Amino acid sequence: MKIAVLPGDGIGTEIIAQAIRVLDALELPFEMETALVGGAAYDAHGHPLPDATLKLAKDADAVLFGAVGDWKYDTLERQFRPEQAILGLRKNLGLFANFRPAICYEQLVDASSLKPELIAGLDILIIRELTGDIYFGQPRGRRTAVDGHFSGAEEAFDTMRYSRPEVERIARVAFEAARKRSKRVTSVDKANVLETFQFWKDIVTEVGKEYPDVELDHMYVDNAAMQLVKAPKKFDVVVTGNMFGDILSDEAAMLTGSIGMLPSASLNASSQGLYEPSHGSAPDIAGKGVANPLATILSAAMMLRYSLNQEEAAVRIETAVKKVLAQGLRTPDIFSKGTTKVGTVEMGDAVLKALA
Amino acid sequence: MKIAVLPGDGIGTEIIAQAIRVLDALELPFEMETALVGGAAYDAHGHPLPDATLKLAKDADAVLFGAVGDWKYDTLERQFRPEQAILGLRKNLGLFANFRPAICYEQLVDASSLKPELIAGLDILIIRELTGDIYFGQPRGRRTAVDGHFSGAEEAFDTMRYSRPEVERIARVAFEAARKRSKRVTSVDKANVLETFQFWKDIVTEVGKEYPDVELDHMYVDNAAMQLVKAPKKFDVVVTGNMFGDILSDEAAMLTGSIGMLPSASLNASSQGLYEPSHGSAPDIAGKGVANPLATILSAAMMLRYSLNQEEAAVRIETAVKKVLAQGLRTPDIFSKGTTKVGTVEMGDAVLKALA
Ligand SMILES: CC(C)[C@H](C(=O)O)[C@@H](O)C(=O)O
Ligand SMILES: CC(C)[C@H](C(=O)O)[C@@H](O)C(=O)O
Repeated sequence: MKIAVLPGDGIGTEIIAQAIRVLDALELPFEMETALVGGAAYDAHGHPLPDATLKLAKDADAVLFGAVGDWKYDTLERQFRPEQAILGLRKNLGLFANFRPAICYEQLVDASSLKPELIAGLDILIIRELTGDIYFGQPRGRRTAVDGHFSGAEEAFDTMRYSRPEVERIARVAFEAARKRSKRVTSVDKANVLETFQFWKDIVTEVGKEYPDVELDHMYVDNAAMQLVKAPKKFDVVVTGNMFGDILSDEAAMLTGSIGMLPSASLNASSQGLYEPSHGSAPDIAGKGVANPLATILSAAMMLRYSLNQEEAAVRIETAVKKVLAQGLRTPDIFSKGTTKVGTVEMGDAVLKALA
Repeated sequence: MKIAVLPGDGIGTEIIAQAIRVLDALELPFEMETALVGGAAYDAHGHPLPDATLKLAKDADAVLFGAVGDWKYDTLERQFRPEQAILGLRKNLGLFANFRPAICYEQLVDASSLKPELIAGLDILIIRELTGDIYFGQPRGRRTAVDGHFSGAEEAFDTMRYSRPEVERIARVAFEAARKRSKRVTSVDKANVLETFQFWKDIVTEVGKEYPDVELDHMYVDNAAMQLVKAPKKFDVVVTGNMFGDILSDEAAMLTGSIGMLPSASLNASSQGLYEPSHGSAPDIAGKGVANPLATILSAAMMLRYSLNQEEAAVRIETAVKKVLAQGLRTPDIFSKGTTKVGTVEMGDAVLKALA
């Protein structure tokens, strides 16, 4: 089993270091190889996703990814910015199915902005399509407008698009996931305005007929953004496109108040996957030893489960994390009165101890 | 002064009736004319925005709009659905600037999902561009994919686009609005992925140079969806495109917990405007006399201020609404223990009494 380890920028290296310690402790026959990605790769090689890094990722069974990005790259041409690395990996590895759980851990209810009764016990699985939509649609660019009221003016444009097989496969992923949970899927669209999402809705409805045991409902994206705030626990599996999924999965993650705890998985058709924390590179706290490594450690657990077929090891890690939380250990992002504040490495130490 | 009154569907007629009573009580020289719109117009005339309704709206100084939509129209071809009426009005009247305040009224803090300290005193003004973006961009439709991995498959597509003058004018609206408030603008984009929103960001930055007294910052839409949950009071004026504005303005409105209180205004370059509550047609409670008319009454106040140049009358209405809240009167949507539950008409009665 080969794992490509891509720590990236900001807190990426610190949190990945703890995940590696945890993986090492499992004493499983992995081969791990590390490479630069994002701003770090741009600094060293002039490109955020160097060929060697892409090859390593492609040849691996799974990619463990930290985070990329820093303000200092904001003025680069788009193709050289750190985010292009993650977009390039998704596209080149065909990682079309993004799993973003939004879970509120019992002990962390108070970290949420929401009233405890609204958030306690939250467990949503957002399934975001990750290789289509307006993220990759062509044509796109700048040009002179040739029609409409502003004909002759400079304009910029992008193309939103979904093909039938793309919608079918992500719908199937969602229905299959729902079968292992509460058998409910909410498909989020904007069918009242967009051709792309009327098509999406039609196809999800069609595929849904193959899963008569799963209840399907449809919701407009603006309404979903509201219902997540009003009554998040009404959701179970949510499936949506790349752009809406970007927004809603972040909103849902932040509702829990503990985004530093949330892992994610991005899978292709052959279960090769990229695993990364839901939070970003947090350049403001990088190098201070205070970042929460748990989302990354839990991402490693997801990796064991989905790409490496090591369910038992995955559960071991997840159990260890719960134990550490129960012990009251907290990095600053999830700290509250009465708990014990620890740093990144101490948190890693505690997980290792709990594993043993 | 001519006002076109378009009650629409669901609770539309009930809430508009109360706003009309309030406007009548002001004894100002208005001419009000009512017409069908949305599903009601489709039922009567076979089109959600009949020519006569559009003409009435175009010839008026302002449009007072209730709400449109009902599940029963969901299976109609898109062009006949109720929402097309509101899109058609926006486009035909050139209503490019949508003002959506998200205000948390002192007495309604408890109605929010958020902890009181996070939401009390909230006062955000979201300015959403309303006639461009992927809502109206051409081409759009269904076709056979001719390139990419799914070449040959059926696909649907839409075009996102913004021209320079469109971004410039909405940016100016935002900076001008900020000058009358706390002099801060947050422009929300997705410049890291979309050509359209890199362009947007560039132009907003340029226009910002004309307003050196206003502080401008930029935020990605996914981050904005998170920060609204985490610390909504950090925002003041938010300006964004049509699609992102649809999602974020609804999220922000729901954060207050009292979307039944929130008005909105959509203006064109000559201050002609359409005024409507931020909530929808709520077919589930239509005809029951329980809908909250205050968002519509406050929309009428915005209409007096922005399109009819009657600032004094606008303030009178707003003061009356505050008085009624202070008296403890609440429709079911904002009811809490210790307050007095009233219906739509009783709430209208109370506002009239407070006006006198
Ligand atoms: C960095 C950015 C391109 C990316 C996205 O928009 O997909 C990020 O927000 C995410 O959700 O992984
Ligand atoms: C009904 C729909 C077309 C509309 C929109 O998406 O603009 C609505 O959600 C709104 O925000 O006014």
